[in-house]
Amino acid sequence: MSGVELYAVNPANGQKLAGTFLKADAKIVEESLAAAEQAFYIYQQIDQAKKALFLQAIADALVANGEEIINRASEESGLPIPRLQGELGRTTGQLRLFADLVLEGSWVDAVIDTAMPERSPVPRSDIRKMLVPIGPVVVFGASNFPLAFSVAGGDTASALAAGCPVIVKAHPAHFGTSALVGQAIISAAAETGMPKGIFALLFDNGLDIGAALVQHKLTKAVAFTGSFKGGMALIKLAEERDEPIPVFAEMGSINPVVLFPEMLDNRPEEMARQLAASITLGAGQFCTNPGITFAISGDGLDRFKSSLAEAISKTPSATMLTPGIAENYLSRSNAMLKEKGVSLLAESAAINENLQCQSVPRILAVSGSGFIKNKGLMEEVFGPHGLLVFCENRLELERALAELDGQLTITLMATVKDLQAHQNIVECLKSKTGRIILNGVPTGVEVCAAMQHGGPFPSTNDSRFSSVGTSAIYRFVRPLAFQDWPQELLPNALKDGNPLGIYRKIDQQLKK
Amino acid sequence: MSGVELYAVNPANGQKLAGTFLKADAKIVEESLAAAEQAFYIYQQIDQAKKALFLQAIADALVANGEEIINRASEESGLPIPRLQGELGRTTGQLRLFADLVLEGSWVDAVIDTAMPERSPVPRSDIRKMLVPIGPVVVFGASNFPLAFSVAGGDTASALAAGCPVIVKAHPAHFGTSALVGQAIISAAAETGMPKGIFALLFDNGLDIGAALVQHKLTKAVAFTGSFKGGMALIKLAEERDEPIPVFAEMGSINPVVLFPEMLDNRPEEMARQLAASITLGAGQFCTNPGITFAISGDGLDRFKSSLAEAISKTPSATMLTPGIAENYLSRSNAMLKEKGVSLLAESAAINENLQCQSVPRILAVSGSGFIKNKGLMEEVFGPHGLLVFCENRLELERALAELDGQLTITLMATVKDLQAHQNIVECLKSKTGRIILNGVPTGVEVCAAMQHGGPFPSTNDSRFSSVGTSAIYRFVRPLAFQDWPQELLPNALKDGNPLGIYRKIDQQLKK
Repeated sequence: MSGVELYAVNPANGQKLAGTFLKADAKIVEESLAAAEQAFYIYQQIDQAKKALFLQAIADALVANGEEIINRASEESGLPIPRLQGELGRTTGQLRLFADLVLEGSWVDAVIDTAMPERSPVPRSDIRKMLVPIGPVVVFGASNFPLAFSVAGGDTASALAAGCPVIVKAHPAHFGTSALVGQAIISAAAETGMPKGIFALLFDNGLDIGAALVQHKLTKAVAFTGSFKGGMALIKLAEERDEPIPVFAEMGSINPVVLFPEMLDNRPEEMARQLAASITLGAGQFCTNPGITFAISGDGLDRFKSSLAEAISKTPSATMLTPGIAENYLSRSNAMLKEKGVSLLAESAAINENLQCQSVPRILAVSGSGFIKNKGLMEEVFGPHGLLVFCENRLELERALAELDGQLTITLMATVKDLQAHQNIVECLKSKTGRIILNGVPTGVEVCAAMQHGGPFPSTNDSRFSSVGTSAIYRFVRPLAFQDWPQELLPNALKDGNPLGIYRKIDQQLKK
Repeated sequence: MSGVELYAVNPANGQKLAGTFLKADAKIVEESLAAAEQAFYIYQQIDQAKKALFLQAIADALVANGEEIINRASEESGLPIPRLQGELGRTTGQLRLFADLVLEGSWVDAVIDTAMPERSPVPRSDIRKMLVPIGPVVVFGASNFPLAFSVAGGDTASALAAGCPVIVKAHPAHFGTSALVGQAIISAAAETGMPKGIFALLFDNGLDIGAALVQHKLTKAVAFTGSFKGGMALIKLAEERDEPIPVFAEMGSINPVVLFPEMLDNRPEEMARQLAASITLGAGQFCTNPGITFAISGDGLDRFKSSLAEAISKTPSATMLTPGIAENYLSRSNAMLKEKGVSLLAESAAINENLQCQSVPRILAVSGSGFIKNKGLMEEVFGPHGLLVFCENRLELERALAELDGQLTITLMATVKDLQAHQNIVECLKSKTGRIILNGVPTGVEVCAAMQHGGPFPSTNDSRFSSVGTSAIYRFVRPLAFQDWPQELLPNALKDGNPLGIYRKIDQQLKK
């Protein structure tokens, strides 16, 4: 250890919080990865049922220490206790979901093509394939989900479930929460007999440790959720490696919402209230925060605008995650307001002056033509911020939507008639997103098998994978094929008798 | 068009072959990608059955023009007619396999999590996910499979099956074959009503067109099979793009073979004959050519060596694919022979002096300690070339194997007892390969669902995907989730009634 001590700050009052955290150095990076590499080989020999117990034990330890963790997380992040209670539930739910996945076992995608010794001109060998883990995974804790996307969040849970050791770089915004959660993982590992080195937690308030972890030759994958700038920096660092490795960077999104004409005439007030709540939820600090809304001008949009303005003006401020995030929010919002043709549609009149780092819920507006001319208006303003793009007509709406980059989500507020009448718009939007929502809000990402949290660039760098839901496990595995291997030495997933009782594709037929 | 005409050469006699091919330029790159982008949207609306007809029509057109294609391919590549007949069969077989996959339909991996409106504290939305194509794919034809890994090869077949338009850069070693096969695809597309722009074939004898294709903003993926140098150059070009895209580079491998003690005592002569045939098959110009063999010294190895030397000395030379490949083969083999401790174990005494570009089957040998000291001995010598690494004892064997980089294949010649007695070696080897073969040879890559053709770096840059077999389709798709979408507007794969009759995971249960 370098001996440098780091500490955490309460963003609501700027005060230093209890506890110090040793800043990691090059030596601990080396040691952690060497231990992870060792653990990788041992962990692969451990059966799936024991791995499931490990994941469940982490969830249990988080529940056991829930109050302490939640209180600390609230102090460090400014997020309210009820939100963090929900987030802890989501975090333990994710861990148990992956435990179930591992226990059930079919996720290894076993495929068996049996031998055809009589085939002419050449016999066919017996070939059997299954997914195996790729090796140590480096996870970057995200600021905005101190539990669900941090130390024991979805990245860690899916990597451990896949069979990979995990090294987490704690986010500087919640060192204390990270330490408590890290301790829960370490206890769970010890309790369930997992190898030393299966998990490590490193602290740093700068960029060096993260860079060293990404560039280390034993690192086999990186998972990150954060800003575009941060994600691209990690991708660049990984590109400088001798050996290419997958980097999964979820870099945010403006999550466009499109209000279609019939729906806008039918229920403008209801949509406005729904959207105002989604824009300001959790001080707008969600990757699926709906940052931009498109509609065609008219009576419906006027009614929508007044309802939205009213709702926003009454929405109280909230403590943002860090002083940096709070400053950045206001400076970016102010800068956007100064752009040509951009006006202020609404702003919260309920700012808490007694606390620091307060968000200011705000909606700006710009015409469709103004939007089309200015690519900068598509940049994310991280916080409770919306931009309303009002278009003159359908053609302008189509042209404005065609400008959009790749997104995590796109939401359509539309009747079935609207969708049928705007098929070209719907097809265009499908090509730009990982999840397409009808008459809902993008915030609230369900953790389930069908979830896709990952869209075309720049929302992520690889739209083929999801960082939420059970499919997140597929980021950290690769197929390994066994040719003409004897039964007794095949992994259980590939043995004739199917001792694990899993679904497998045998000679093109899916069977259990 | 630039108006520059390119032509092909017969490597066996250095003579110019009939036919000229217009060199592509920046304008045709632009036009091809613009047309591919247009075709992409139309192609997505075409149902799977019609896509299957398209793939079958390509296979039919290749069969109909089989004689002409095979004759031209033989003239251009120096490969014998029977080999090319087999390769054409493989190529049409691949196309029909992907047609069947698309027709069956379950490959889209439909996952449905139905709504839970009563769930507390928040209801669950209806979320349904399936795979959708990513967009235009650029394919680089490979020199060593003028049919099966070229214009209508596995990359093209899997990309078209996925729903992606394809632009192929013809390999300069077989322009005429490429043109004939390209014409077959274009006729099949016209015949089955596919959109213009679904396929394009570009000719270039330099690097510019390939670079322009990889860096074009409308290109969404790249597939390449070839040398390490070539693959890394494409990866580098892709890294310079604003938008990251997946590049699948299969960059070759030395495909180690390990001879275990008991097996070496039991049947050294048989293994030697088997291996000699595999090393020299097709002038050794396969990505799965077994380029290095490890064993512990002793009587068994002595017997193996004499049989191997005898078989190699009798193996006739064969015409290599191009003058460049033939020159490179000999210069690299000669350079390796000059390395410290490397000796010549065997060389063919049956060289055809009447033809040009003749391969010289050759086996070199080095001690385990010599190998461990010299990383350069792990570099691929593309051609009928083997290096035998003889180790003093088990420890030296283990240390030598630990040095190995990632491989497409690793082959173990072993009895069950051997494997049980060397578990640590087996585990180490599994971690270094995409396919692990027992008592066979790595050449002859079966095209089937269980095949994995893609291993840890540097054999490929992304071990999570295969370029052979039905799973190759997964390189060119991404998941798209629909949230609360009405039945009538969902894709057929996600509708309640399962009109396609495919396997789907509904609320965690796999069902048809």
